[in-house]
Amino acid sequence: MTTAELKLATTSATTLSTTMKALVYHGLGKYAWEDKPRPAIQDPGDAIVRITTSTICGTDLHILKGDLASVTDGRILGHEGIGVIEQIGTGVSEFHAGDKVIISCVTACLKCDFCRRGMYSHCRDGGWILGNTLDGTQAQYVRIPHADGSLYNFPVGGDEEELVMLSDILPTGFECGVLNGQVKPGDTVAIVGAGPVGLAVLLTAQFYSPAAIFMIDLDDKRLAVAKKFGATTLINSADGQAAHHVMELTEGAGVDVVIEAVGLPATFAICQDIVAAGGRIANVGVHGKPVELHMEKLWDRNISLTTRLVDTVTTPMLLKVVRSGKLQPGKLVTHRFAMNDIIKAYDTFGNAAKEGALKVVLTNGGSR
Amino acid sequence: MTTAELKLATTSATTLSTTMKALVYHGLGKYAWEDKPRPAIQDPGDAIVRITTSTICGTDLHILKGDLASVTDGRILGHEGIGVIEQIGTGVSEFHAGDKVIISCVTACLKCDFCRRGMYSHCRDGGWILGNTLDGTQAQYVRIPHADGSLYNFPVGGDEEELVMLSDILPTGFECGVLNGQVKPGDTVAIVGAGPVGLAVLLTAQFYSPAAIFMIDLDDKRLAVAKKFGATTLINSADGQAAHHVMELTEGAGVDVVIEAVGLPATFAICQDIVAAGGRIANVGVHGKPVELHMEKLWDRNISLTTRLVDTVTTPMLLKVVRSGKLQPGKLVTHRFAMNDIIKAYDTFGNAAKEGALKVVLTNGGSR
Amino acid sequence: MTTAELKLATTSATTLSTTMKALVYHGLGKYAWEDKPRPAIQDPGDAIVRITTSTICGTDLHILKGDLASVTDGRILGHEGIGVIEQIGTGVSEFHAGDKVIISCVTACLKCDFCRRGMYSHCRDGGWILGNTLDGTQAQYVRIPHADGSLYNFPVGGDEEELVMLSDILPTGFECGVLNGQVKPGDTVAIVGAGPVGLAVLLTAQFYSPAAIFMIDLDDKRLAVAKKFGATTLINSADGQAAHHVMELTEGAGVDVVIEAVGLPATFAICQDIVAAGGRIANVGVHGKPVELHMEKLWDRNISLTTRLVDTVTTPMLLKVVRSGKLQPGKLVTHRFAMNDIIKAYDTFGNAAKEGALKVVLTNGGSR
Amino acid sequence: MTTAELKLATTSATTLSTTMKALVYHGLGKYAWEDKPRPAIQDPGDAIVRITTSTICGTDLHILKGDLASVTDGRILGHEGIGVIEQIGTGVSEFHAGDKVIISCVTACLKCDFCRRGMYSHCRDGGWILGNTLDGTQAQYVRIPHADGSLYNFPVGGDEEELVMLSDILPTGFECGVLNGQVKPGDTVAIVGAGPVGLAVLLTAQFYSPAAIFMIDLDDKRLAVAKKFGATTLINSADGQAAHHVMELTEGAGVDVVIEAVGLPATFAICQDIVAAGGRIANVGVHGKPVELHMEKLWDRNISLTTRLVDTVTTPMLLKVVRSGKLQPGKLVTHRFAMNDIIKAYDTFGNAAKEGALKVVLTNGGSR
Repeated sequence: MTTAELKLATTSATTLSTTMKALVYHGLGKYAWEDKPRPAIQDPGDAIVRITTSTICGTDLHILKGDLASVTDGRILGHEGIGVIEQIGTGVSEFHAGDKVIISCVTACLKCDFCRRGMYSHCRDGGWILGNTLDGTQAQYVRIPHADGSLYNFPVGGDEEELVMLSDILPTGFECGVLNGQVKPGDTVAIVGAGPVGLAVLLTAQFYSPAAIFMIDLDDKRLAVAKKFGATTLINSADGQAAHHVMELTEGAGVDVVIEAVGLPATFAICQDIVAAGGRIANVGVHGKPVELHMEKLWDRNISLTTRLVDTVTTPMLLKVVRSGKLQPGKLVTHRFAMNDIIKAYDTFGNAAKEGALKVVLTNGGSR
Repeated sequence: MTTAELKLATTSATTLSTTMKALVYHGLGKYAWEDKPRPAIQDPGDAIVRITTSTICGTDLHILKGDLASVTDGRILGHEGIGVIEQIGTGVSEFHAGDKVIISCVTACLKCDFCRRGMYSHCRDGGWILGNTLDGTQAQYVRIPHADGSLYNFPVGGDEEELVMLSDILPTGFECGVLNGQVKPGDTVAIVGAGPVGLAVLLTAQFYSPAAIFMIDLDDKRLAVAKKFGATTLINSADGQAAHHVMELTEGAGVDVVIEAVGLPATFAICQDIVAAGGRIANVGVHGKPVELHMEKLWDRNISLTTRLVDTVTTPMLLKVVRSGKLQPGKLVTHRFAMNDIIKAYDTFGNAAKEGALKVVLTNGGSR
Repeated sequence: MTTAELKLATTSATTLSTTMKALVYHGLGKYAWEDKPRPAIQDPGDAIVRITTSTICGTDLHILKGDLASVTDGRILGHEGIGVIEQIGTGVSEFHAGDKVIISCVTACLKCDFCRRGMYSHCRDGGWILGNTLDGTQAQYVRIPHADGSLYNFPVGGDEEELVMLSDILPTGFECGVLNGQVKPGDTVAIVGAGPVGLAVLLTAQFYSPAAIFMIDLDDKRLAVAKKFGATTLINSADGQAAHHVMELTEGAGVDVVIEAVGLPATFAICQDIVAAGGRIANVGVHGKPVELHMEKLWDRNISLTTRLVDTVTTPMLLKVVRSGKLQPGKLVTHRFAMNDIIKAYDTFGNAAKEGALKVVLTNGGSR
Repeated sequence: MTTAELKLATTSATTLSTTMKALVYHGLGKYAWEDKPRPAIQDPGDAIVRITTSTICGTDLHILKGDLASVTDGRILGHEGIGVIEQIGTGVSEFHAGDKVIISCVTACLKCDFCRRGMYSHCRDGGWILGNTLDGTQAQYVRIPHADGSLYNFPVGGDEEELVMLSDILPTGFECGVLNGQVKPGDTVAIVGAGPVGLAVLLTAQFYSPAAIFMIDLDDKRLAVAKKFGATTLINSADGQAAHHVMELTEGAGVDVVIEAVGLPATFAICQDIVAAGGRIANVGVHGKPVELHMEKLWDRNISLTTRLVDTVTTPMLLKVVRSGKLQPGKLVTHRFAMNDIIKAYDTFGNAAKEGALKVVLTNGGSR
């Protein structure tokens, strides 16, 4: 199909200006808020979304540090956002221009074998591509491929700041941590890492009424937040004795579920030390190095260990729970910036410990 | 309760001779077929079983090498067997003197929290204790604690040689490998290790009609056996290219389920290399050392890894399947010895590769 | 074993008085608080429990009406209770004289095939027998067979009034209603019947954070209680339009889970009318008659319908949740009586609607 | 989008003749093989498939009897078929003109909430519509909406006669009967009805190695076929004693899984009578009337009862199992006709008992 045909095929015929502002990565440590061409429909399944709210993820910081080779110079960052659809391709059936939507961090064609199994994370024409191999959401506009599988209707009366947490952090904490960890009523749960993702685990673990949630972190400020969010026991791991404390607290039994939300060999080691016989270790953290797995101790302990890139299959369910009032993800927001001030927002988020930052919210105000 | 009272309480009043023959461990590499006192009822839940058939497990060889510190000088080895109940304690309700029984390698009190959850392997007063911390089944008689939870009725018309495989190897392969690996119809399965346990995995994986089963081993003779037992593809890993071959055969996808039945870092490494996104690694092998887990590659692959000491909760189901003719565990038996010749049996089993040995069966013939 | 031997075998040698008071059923509508012989150990697995707290179940009223042929003249009623162990048989290993315990309404031998599968309700030597085919707990003492499988340790600092709800009503609501109904976060749940069991369903359904819980009943007072207990929508079914209201509220979709807690054809009919495609009907109510099942409408609706007699396998988990403070079953208690006043308690409970009664608690005060 | 644009948008530009032959329903009992306009692309997700193989379903006979009000005069029947894609719409990404495909009886948009949950049967823009509310496959050509979700690649070297069984009957038997019935190794299974669907249940139940499969039918010829297909016990229900026989054979226990493959109150009654405590009744049959459900007997039996319209989510898995040789659906084919002789084929299939017919295969031979 030619571009001309596509233009005809789109349902909205607005005359668009040709440029926009975006946060662009320029290699190790370099990034700028600069002019970029506005995205246009390329495939029948595409939607162009005008971003109204976005946020910054820990993964974005990793990109800036050069940790992700898949992200190249010139890429617009960001994989979280709320916006309004400007245009749709001819193959989009579930959305229309003008719809307000939540953008999922994972793009799903819905047709491939992985999508059919609910493993959108490994979609053969999607997965995590936004702000990675495709231009992302820290911009005024973004092109969303496979829009029908990758967008969700923003509910009437919803709060953008709350619901932008559904783009990534809440399904990540819930699917990779809580669902994979199979948290059950009465369980004892330990969460290693009280950063934003660990806190998202904490919030969503409570869907299942565990009897106790131990929160383990080096930072007392984050632990204090965890307390407010429902952790029953706080353990500062600075003394290197976190595992020892957990074993004492559980009278040597260990915990039913331990959720790794950091991504380091040291935190992974804690998980192995405290998992109960018959327990589950659910990994959420992004790891850059191998870890030592003590199979000589674990082979007969009847444990399971899971890994997962978020599939975002639970987004509709999380929406229902947020709307019912049982989950208040707005709690995770500590700072707010205009999108134009995104460089400041990165500074704040990059100094999270000092700034007491969890999630920083970015809003595109004004007219388009 | 005094011993005198217990004697009155037992249902069988046969006058027993006071000694028997047994295979006794005497520290690193030393063992003998020698006289030992006959076991007597010690607790109300005990049964005394006269062994008619037993067998040797790979774990017994580990013990002889001094690998298991829990096994001390003077211990009678063996945790597999068929026999006839001689005496029962007052608390035994499911069995009677004269019953022919299958002895489970795992002792289950049925009352503790682990037993209640079906995790007999971690029974607070049982688990794997026979031939480990308690005298075992390579003897003329054995005391079985918690008999109601640890014995199974030998079916009328059953074959001892077949059914002694239900003591350990079949539930081990099935529970730790097949159930934990969640083998499903149409799956591609790889089994690393074609020893007796790997072959038990192979036999029981076929309960679920996988589309393909790759068998990986260093020994062509064992692979040839695997072929006869239903493996669809044989891979000799001697060239260090097993993972490469599997990835080629699966067009880069890897396998849905990979089952580790060896217990070494090298074989565990193969498992990590060939598991598909969304796949399961089920560990069956007994490990003596830590392994390197490539979390930097696996964190986003949506895999699960499980460990398990057999619970033997599936023994009743396995009995049904054996009796229906859909499983013929007798295939695993390659050698037969009189119990009196157990030293020779150990020689044969200890040189399994050379002797082509899988399971060697021991029978206590003659009168008692 | 002779009675003499048993007496020797028991661990407590207290001289017991030979009579006690108990609530005895004497056929259709007749019952009395009268003298009965104190129970004694009969089997090695027995415990004699001195009752400190008991309660009355709707099933007890059914018995008085002559609905249960299994209950015969002379039977002591009651299958719920808290007490202190006076004596144990020689086969009891998990409890000792002096232990305070929660008595489960279901007796479990733990050894039979059903118990092994966690279906204690169908235990081949137990199930619901207390106050049915065996003398029950509305007495000063009760004999509990298979004590190790049928008693639970009363936690230090626990409240008897709260924890007597764990004998029956909470596991019944939770297992038959919530677990079988597979309540999940975000679900829409309807509970038909706001009696004590329906309210127990309501309390325990919230373990899983459903988005909405519709409570359907004829009685506005009970609906008002349901509101306090967490129901999100109240529907008085007196107008015969309950199903219609639910379908309107769900925009024609119906509910994900519908739990029948009454046991009548009319209430069962509501369930069929409001279950969503792909939904679950979990029956909790005791039925006396067949119902009409509209298979001509349901055959292609992908629904499941479950029945269950409570297994009480979740009692340990419920205990943990109560102790964590996430479940406060004491809310169900509306009236309190001394055990000596049990006839008055029956009068109150028998006029539940008028009296506003949910659970009436009975306590055996004073010395023994 | 205009028709002209759509024509441009299609990938194949073959000049098509404007008519074709098709089996057309004309109201109660009337149908003819007659000329109809060839279907054309109407929506971007459509594909036009030239039928090479089709078959007749029992449901088609129901339609002819006027049982399905949704099917109106002029409708082309048929919801099963193999064919070659002639044209695709612009939104089709997984298939191309020239691809040989298996047509699923269920149309799936993949985008709606039901499709996302794997409940394609209730797709909001699909479900069972072919040969129902949309023209079907008993024709030379058919339009398949949502082609990406409703077609499957025909494997190289596949057999059309075998694989047309994947359009409906195999997934129906497997999903509604075997999966919903949760058949497990060692189970005792009863199948009520040995027609084509019952036999499809029989073939696919064996994926899970049940220990025994009882086949219940009125027709000894069909029972004889069942024997060849793997049934272990045959029960002719003509004497009205089928339930009695099953209970005797199971020593009063009943069966673990009972699968209803008829759709009548009488056969449904058998299911209730023979399901074991803790067992499952999986309904496959299409029911036209309510049934009496004996809740007064079943309320405490811990059973589940399921209904399901096939979702065809297991088609990819079934394809793998067919290709592995573990399932040979060609066994179900008893008669073959040229599509032009479809009226004769209906005569044969309509007299299935007399003709010994199971599945009759129709082939469109010759050039197009």
